[in-house]
Amino acid sequence: MSTIAVDAMGGDSAPKEIVKGAILAKESGVNVILSGDKALIDNYLDGINIPVIDYPEVISMEDNPARAIRTKKNASILGALNLVKENKADGVFSAGATGGTLVGSISVLGKIRGVLRPAIAAVLPGLDGDTILLDSGSSLDVKPKILLQYAAMGSKLAEILFENDNPKIGLLNNGEEESKGRDLEKSTYKLLKSSNLNFVGNVEGRDFANSKADVFVTDGFTGNIVLKTMEGTAKLQNNLLSNSLKNKLFKPLLIPVKNAMKPAKEKLDPDKTNASYLLGVSGLVTIGHGSSSAEAVKNGILYTHRSAEKGFINKFSNTISEL
Amino acid sequence: MSTIAVDAMGGDSAPKEIVKGAILAKESGVNVILSGDKALIDNYLDGINIPVIDYPEVISMEDNPARAIRTKKNASILGALNLVKENKADGVFSAGATGGTLVGSISVLGKIRGVLRPAIAAVLPGLDGDTILLDSGSSLDVKPKILLQYAAMGSKLAEILFENDNPKIGLLNNGEEESKGRDLEKSTYKLLKSSNLNFVGNVEGRDFANSKADVFVTDGFTGNIVLKTMEGTAKLQNNLLSNSLKNKLFKPLLIPVKNAMKPAKEKLDPDKTNASYLLGVSGLVTIGHGSSSAEAVKNGILYTHRSAEKGFINKFSNTISEL
Repeated sequence: MSTIAVDAMGGDSAPKEIVKGAILAKESGVNVILSGDKALIDNYLDGINIPVIDYPEVISMEDNPARAIRTKKNASILGALNLVKENKADGVFSAGATGGTLVGSISVLGKIRGVLRPAIAAVLPGLDGDTILLDSGSSLDVKPKILLQYAAMGSKLAEILFENDNPKIGLLNNGEEESKGRDLEKSTYKLLKSSNLNFVGNVEGRDFANSKADVFVTDGFTGNIVLKTMEGTAKLQNNLLSNSLKNKLFKPLLIPVKNAMKPAKEKLDPDKTNASYLLGVSGLVTIGHGSSSAEAVKNGILYTHRSAEKGFINKFSNTISEL
Repeated sequence: MSTIAVDAMGGDSAPKEIVKGAILAKESGVNVILSGDKALIDNYLDGINIPVIDYPEVISMEDNPARAIRTKKNASILGALNLVKENKADGVFSAGATGGTLVGSISVLGKIRGVLRPAIAAVLPGLDGDTILLDSGSSLDVKPKILLQYAAMGSKLAEILFENDNPKIGLLNNGEEESKGRDLEKSTYKLLKSSNLNFVGNVEGRDFANSKADVFVTDGFTGNIVLKTMEGTAKLQNNLLSNSLKNKLFKPLLIPVKNAMKPAKEKLDPDKTNASYLLGVSGLVTIGHGSSSAEAVKNGILYTHRSAEKGFINKFSNTISEL
């Protein structure tokens, strides 16, 4: 039975929503340890028995991550990562500042041998199965060699998560043709073409709706924008649909129709599917939205727990170090 | 009564779908002139009386736009643009290669005085009114000064289209904080902050679902990815919803429910809302999806026609040359 260390101070509504989410996860049968400001956390725990380690400092979105990791030795994310390093936990979940989690993970756990830069891999819903988008926000400026390695890491992740021996790798670009893109995409295209990955060529934003690729590779700036645009579009469409149904549908039908739509809506709801993998560091680290609600935190912790139970990080580390 | 010149050879299914769309637009009461391979077009016109000018060459996605504009003097897009230059048409609609339309427009119509680079402005649906995204694909690599000018052009466009005296300008970024983004966004933020535009700060992909900004400013690579991601996400969610309703809803309800959902679905359907403005050139030029169906072409032509009727380009040129 694995244990998940949770960064209780990370997130827009931390520690309140994080602690509430941890309680929900514990009620679902997961062992949780909270890292953060013990006095504050104890208030929210309200007597519920979840271990807390006292790391009261917070790394915020405004902090310079590298400087914060050096100077805030009692930062909550560092406490959580230390638990994994000391084998007291099997994975970390954080909804805190991504930069802090990234730099902290490299500093405490180290990178897997051969990895140039870790990447954040988001698992996105698809029609015929999930897809992976990486990097979804760790490095804003990258070189073609780094994108090639992201592709390799994404391929391994798809193998493990989707049990797919030969995942299709697509390069996110502004058109399908080989000539498309900035210098970054043009050079990366060549590298991918001559690699031993199952490269299917350039893919576009609209290909998230089909099965053209299992893994979408891009830089962290574009990936972050894509992820949030998906969230925004899904929300916009839901609101438009809601208004449309209210105006056009016989009122007593509204509730059964909304219930029937629920499974689909939840697939694109970040509160239900929250958590991305930080790939390339020597340990299981997952990252949730900054705006995570208690439910999102619960789902993120459960997701991390399932990955730990499947021996995710061992499988990933063993194969990726052969890069 | 204004006349729209249509690039009949531009688009994945040209000239067939373009000609069919032009016929539909004519049936809706718009004067259309087609530019393209006359013999081919006449086949599809099937006796319907739409004037055709014979410009049989095609600029494709694979062409280098600058070279193609120099060497293919009989390219269909050039014929359409010439009609506007010679005051025989009031606007151009093209679903052809964006690069060709961009370079052709600069070459035939010229840039508005003071404009560094034209931008493609897409008009997107919102919950409380539409929003503008620019650049959505004309320049992949830009400098902060260019993004500042895009913001000014977007602001003028919002003034005209939305009759909003003080449109809110947002810089698309990977977070709200001033410190976020690549060097491009950090420098542009400073320029926007000290401009006389109504700059509301950084905005994120998820803000497409709210009214945080009327104009979203970004480079053409990111803008193109955003546009197609919106398309892909809307389609994915529609398909997920469709499956969910089929599984969960009492069958006889499916048709009324789908009908009630239709107005909302159409708002995010590129075939219904097809056409973006090419801003910064001395003439009304709109750009449709490469994959435009006949219906999309019809809607694009009608859209261009309405803009021409409103005196769009005069209003825009007069104010933008004060930049």
